Amino acid sequence: MPLLDTFISNKMPYPDEFEGFMINEIGKYTEFKKQTFKPKKFGDHNVDIKIECCGVCGSDVHTITGGWGDAPMPICVGHEIVGKAVKVGSQVKDVKVGDRVGVGAQVWSCLKCGPCKSNNDNYCPNKVDTYGAPYPKEEDPDETIAQGGYASHIRAQDFMVFPIPESIPSHLAAPMLCAGLTVWNPLVRNNTGSGKHIAVVGLGGLGHFAVMFAAALGAEVTVISHSPNKKDDALKLGAKHFVSSTNKDWAKPLAFTFDFILSTADVLDMEVLQDYLSTLKVDCKFHSVGLPDKSIDGLNPQHFMSNGCSIGSSHIGSRKECLEMLKFASEKKLYPRVETVPISEKGCAEVVERVNKNKVHYRFTLVDYDKAFGA
Amino acid sequence: MPLLDTFISNKMPYPDEFEGFMINEIGKYTEFKKQTFKPKKFGDHNVDIKIECCGVCGSDVHTITGGWGDAPMPICVGHEIVGKAVKVGSQVKDVKVGDRVGVGAQVWSCLKCGPCKSNNDNYCPNKVDTYGAPYPKEEDPDETIAQGGYASHIRAQDFMVFPIPESIPSHLAAPMLCAGLTVWNPLVRNNTGSGKHIAVVGLGGLGHFAVMFAAALGAEVTVISHSPNKKDDALKLGAKHFVSSTNKDWAKPLAFTFDFILSTADVLDMEVLQDYLSTLKVDCKFHSVGLPDKSIDGLNPQHFMSNGCSIGSSHIGSRKECLEMLKFASEKKLYPRVETVPISEKGCAEVVERVNKNKVHYRFTLVDYDKAFGA
Repeated sequence: MPLLDTFISNKMPYPDEFEGFMINEIGKYTEFKKQTFKPKKFGDHNVDIKIECCGVCGSDVHTITGGWGDAPMPICVGHEIVGKAVKVGSQVKDVKVGDRVGVGAQVWSCLKCGPCKSNNDNYCPNKVDTYGAPYPKEEDPDETIAQGGYASHIRAQDFMVFPIPESIPSHLAAPMLCAGLTVWNPLVRNNTGSGKHIAVVGLGGLGHFAVMFAAALGAEVTVISHSPNKKDDALKLGAKHFVSSTNKDWAKPLAFTFDFILSTADVLDMEVLQDYLSTLKVDCKFHSVGLPDKSIDGLNPQHFMSNGCSIGSSHIGSRKECLEMLKFASEKKLYPRVETVPISEKGCAEVVERVNKNKVHYRFTLVDYDKAFGA
Repeated sequence: MPLLDTFISNKMPYPDEFEGFMINEIGKYTEFKKQTFKPKKFGDHNVDIKIECCGVCGSDVHTITGGWGDAPMPICVGHEIVGKAVKVGSQVKDVKVGDRVGVGAQVWSCLKCGPCKSNNDNYCPNKVDTYGAPYPKEEDPDETIAQGGYASHIRAQDFMVFPIPESIPSHLAAPMLCAGLTVWNPLVRNNTGSGKHIAVVGLGGLGHFAVMFAAALGAEVTVISHSPNKKDDALKLGAKHFVSSTNKDWAKPLAFTFDFILSTADVLDMEVLQDYLSTLKVDCKFHSVGLPDKSIDGLNPQHFMSNGCSIGSSHIGSRKECLEMLKFASEKKLYPRVETVPISEKGCAEVVERVNKNKVHYRFTLVDYDKAFGA
């Protein structure tokens, strides 16, 4: 009875098993249970991390509510992980035992494909997501399903383990590893900088990072939000303008205004999309890193014709971009606004429920892992 | 009775009225009648052109079948026009009476807006399409609906009138002014050239221009088509590879292959779109200048996430691009494959019916205007 044993003695089952707060039935997304699970086989390029804290991402909630479809159960979500390296494989060069390191939404990439060889490891077609994805047989004979960071430990490929700059506290670094990187990638790949006017749609976990980063990169930033009460925060984070999209006809005076729109909202239908598209300059892009549960129906190429615009999305960022983002955030002291909650069955339930209801300003980080899992 | 009078005497009603082969009821798209219509008021920047020939565009057919929705009736379609300037306004500088000139899918732009001032006159929000669009009151007190090139004459803004290089015969220049320009714009704006691998979807009027232009710009070109019998033509036009999309799983071996996909097909559903998107390299675009009658349902940002791709479209090209395209085509002797048909009620009916059934290799030009309208 490893679970009971652990519970009573607080003795960790590591290194044979890890412990985590897990969901056992999709849809019952607040019913976290502290359970043990078996990690993948330890390999020469693996790093084991004793987790110190983990950010709470919208993806965690979409996954366990079933909003994005099926997921293998039981599941331990969480992919904004910071902790201490406690074991490194024989081939690991860039991480030493004792280093403070992070892991984002990806724990393995093949390092052989075209995307991997061009600093696009985030688009590796063989990649393993941090939770809910099976390892390929070549990497793990049991094809173990990866489990995430609401847990005592994580085992990850060294290439997917990032050193955390000393100046960034762990609970503030954690949310950068998915939320931060997810907006950093499209901002830098779409030339955000001086002379550019960038719109950020939605001011939540991703949006508040996007505003900070875009402004610090030198762009003029407009926040477009359904919540007029977020105006003050938007301006404090670096936005120059705030537009409330609850006003009918909000888009009309903004025709041909933006060089790039980064949407972090997870609602997107044709009516609102057409408004957004109309505010783009010629040949510019509406880029949605918000991932709605519902599809956009009724789109056709004609919707892009009045300004030659386009729509797209992206998937987190590469290792290279993650290191650049951490350096930039550290130098410019760009820290997210985080509310910390001690990890526990109750704590996990509280944070996913509040994220699901958009009641967070602007990101949760689960902390006090030593109390839950032992020091 | 100007119509009867004209018919008998072959005496043109110009300059008070123009004559054209017109459709009087949307949907009855083969019922052309030779009728007169009143052009907009002649202005200081207008050029009157006695039409010599006109290409037949898919847009003509979508408009009169009602595939793209309603259109003002009666209508004279046609926006690939070549002819001779017969009258120029007092402010016209670049066109002289007697010049051989062309008009494409746009007859007026405001020349004052942001797009106009940045060589994006094709995205002028105040623009007037060559047929079926009303002039703004500032340009024409009667807000006349513009009529196209299946007609004796056209009146256009000088800025929208293009000199035709001497080396290009009129019936070959005409299709360049919409079909050619429509693919030239996205090819050059998306950096088609040496080292790039470009896919062209569909080998019709637009597609065959796209293959010629992309290959001549230095790109490696793959044609993706539902018609395996077009392979020889594709290779002769400059393609290096031909992929038949009738083969199930055609896309699998092409994952992460193309720097840009230019789709000229006018059928696009989610299933085929997903195949196309999977063949793009990271951060690259699927660009559709084919304009389906039906919308794409079921799309969401997740479809762009496996390679950070995007989808978009564009609208013809700017004056600057049109002049560059004509120069390039003239220097490289890139001429479309054109079947000529004498203009008449019967001739118009024949060409739109065959375009509607995709039975054209690869473009029609209506000719023998002098016989229909007088010399």
